[in-house]
Amino acid sequence: MTISDNVRHGIEGSIVLKQKYGTKNVYDLSLGNPEMEPPAQFRKELLRLATSADTGLHRYMPNAGYPETREAVAAQLSVDFDLSFSTNDVVMTGGAAAALNITMKTLLNPGDEMIIFAPYFGEYVNYAANYGAVLRVVTTDETFVPKIDDIEAAISDNTKVVLANSPNNPSGVVLSDEFWDQLGLLLEKKEQQYGTQIYLISDEAYRKIIYDGLKYPSPLHHYRRSIIIESHSKDLALPGERIGYVAVHPDIDQKPDLINGLVFCMRALGYVNAPAMMQQVVSFLQSVTVDIDAYQKKRDYLYKSLIDLGYQLSLPQGAFYLFPKTPIEDDVAFVQQLQQFKVITGPGTAFGAPGYFRIAYCVDDRTLEGALEGFESAAKKFGIIG
Amino acid sequence: MTISDNVRHGIEGSIVLKQKYGTKNVYDLSLGNPEMEPPAQFRKELLRLATSADTGLHRYMPNAGYPETREAVAAQLSVDFDLSFSTNDVVMTGGAAAALNITMKTLLNPGDEMIIFAPYFGEYVNYAANYGAVLRVVTTDETFVPKIDDIEAAISDNTKVVLANSPNNPSGVVLSDEFWDQLGLLLEKKEQQYGTQIYLISDEAYRKIIYDGLKYPSPLHHYRRSIIIESHSKDLALPGERIGYVAVHPDIDQKPDLINGLVFCMRALGYVNAPAMMQQVVSFLQSVTVDIDAYQKKRDYLYKSLIDLGYQLSLPQGAFYLFPKTPIEDDVAFVQQLQQFKVITGPGTAFGAPGYFRIAYCVDDRTLEGALEGFESAAKKFGIIG
Repeated sequence: MTISDNVRHGIEGSIVLKQKYGTKNVYDLSLGNPEMEPPAQFRKELLRLATSADTGLHRYMPNAGYPETREAVAAQLSVDFDLSFSTNDVVMTGGAAAALNITMKTLLNPGDEMIIFAPYFGEYVNYAANYGAVLRVVTTDETFVPKIDDIEAAISDNTKVVLANSPNNPSGVVLSDEFWDQLGLLLEKKEQQYGTQIYLISDEAYRKIIYDGLKYPSPLHHYRRSIIIESHSKDLALPGERIGYVAVHPDIDQKPDLINGLVFCMRALGYVNAPAMMQQVVSFLQSVTVDIDAYQKKRDYLYKSLIDLGYQLSLPQGAFYLFPKTPIEDDVAFVQQLQQFKVITGPGTAFGAPGYFRIAYCVDDRTLEGALEGFESAAKKFGIIG
Repeated sequence: MTISDNVRHGIEGSIVLKQKYGTKNVYDLSLGNPEMEPPAQFRKELLRLATSADTGLHRYMPNAGYPETREAVAAQLSVDFDLSFSTNDVVMTGGAAAALNITMKTLLNPGDEMIIFAPYFGEYVNYAANYGAVLRVVTTDETFVPKIDDIEAAISDNTKVVLANSPNNPSGVVLSDEFWDQLGLLLEKKEQQYGTQIYLISDEAYRKIIYDGLKYPSPLHHYRRSIIIESHSKDLALPGERIGYVAVHPDIDQKPDLINGLVFCMRALGYVNAPAMMQQVVSFLQSVTVDIDAYQKKRDYLYKSLIDLGYQLSLPQGAFYLFPKTPIEDDVAFVQQLQQFKVITGPGTAFGAPGYFRIAYCVDDRTLEGALEGFESAAKKFGIIG
């Protein structure tokens, strides 16, 4: 069992615990599986398709996706990032996980190095292994932002990819324009120094789930060899449907080769194309999201409650996770203790960050409220409150 | 460009030709992309979901799929094969392509050998390369059935998988119970001889599209270490939606390890789960298919027409392809010549079988009728009719 098994086996693990205690008595904060329903416009588009007299809605289309969908995505990206995206810059995929895999397969040969920042989404370890890539993990401080000097020290002439994730799963941190600016300058310097090409893959699955009126700081404005990975799992609450996309910087070098590579990998990995009907639905939902304010309220409620209980954590500006320190050093033991108090969370170890635990607050308020008793019991047991 | 690029780039290639001549003047027989609509029951289930008051229809579920869907699949498999399948024998996937990839990743380590029979679906070459598997290609005679002696000669102590495909794409051949019986005995003998385990992967994407009242001959009755790959792309005409499954022989050895491997590979390859809503739809469509008689009529019409024009071909009992000999040796040149007569087909070379060409007849009758003129012009040009 690899480390990341701890995370995704959560859905089976939580089923077992729910069977043991009864669903209503277990507070499951372990999964990034939104309990919010998709926006009303989603239902409207779905119903339109289900009652449409059009034929051919479920057939193969080009591997990159319907041109109409790619055009709609490109149009919204152009607005969001104030850059001029075209249809050919976009490849529709089966969610961010598929997008990451086809991008890594396109860019990475066995032995190539890929830099990731801890804490990281545990599946990155499996994805890198698929293509024989060597992971270089750059740790971060308590703000969960990597230091540019540490990134510089990790780059070699074998570095092919830097994979960043903002807002971050599990920390919720949103990387700043200042960070991207420094990273862009560093990568350009290192490319010159080594005579190499270093791609920045920006996993933006949570891009639209940001708070406090923040405008999303994008690496696209700071580094041209950037590829963005987007998903509708979170912004439209459709994780089970597997719909997302890859988009390349409009001015990226060797663009036709790169896009051909992505399309080839859609086929070679057996993805073939992103699900047809979902492509047709999201064409019309590019400017729509779930209720972000509702997530911000959950964040604020849980953050304040945990601070009051004596937990140490920072207030993240994105995604729907909190990533507090564990009151004891052993985060796996702490998470097991919380389970005995009927609260399910994830150990930081599964995200490359021992000594922390991840709380997913994309659940209904009753679950958040119910979990507080368990958090309080654990806080008392480990002496962070009296 | 690899060989199989010729096949799947067909969709782009046919778009170019259609732009050049006008859609109505190009007869595209190059794609296994059914023009039939899904059955009426599909629309009914889709509408039920689109108007349902249920919540949570688009969330993550266990990586293997909804238990209810897997149970429905297992129940129908039990009827179809007169074996006792359970929910845990089934993993829902994003079509047969995903099913093949997770199965190969589970079974194959770099350097392991996999035997395939030519003609074969061109993407097998890419899939094998994903996992560093070494392909051993066993050729077939004019009946497109491999000889048991040739398979025996190809098996070594490195052989981990035999991948069969019945009904075959591109030949349409359905392998017989006699063939499976002999193959099963051979594999058992070779396992004993080498002290190895040899898995039979049976790609049955076209299982339900068989003709002349044939009952599907299944390898499950002849070899226990069998894994079947199924798809709803063809039997329900849903290729764009990416829905299918893997099922293991109910009595296969080391079943829990095998299923855990498949589930792990669903995650590791970034599939995560088969699309949620399509899983819910096909739960209720396990005994439903498109109109198979309509395909049989198309087969009969085109087969007779081509025979009358002097083409050499056999009458296949399954799938929706014909695979005639090319009147000249160079199948790529012949296919290019047919394109000049406005008929798009695929060269046998792309399927590991030079000297043949593939016709996909899953199109409307107007297209089949229109293509005959081009087939006649080519027959005249190359002297097979006067």
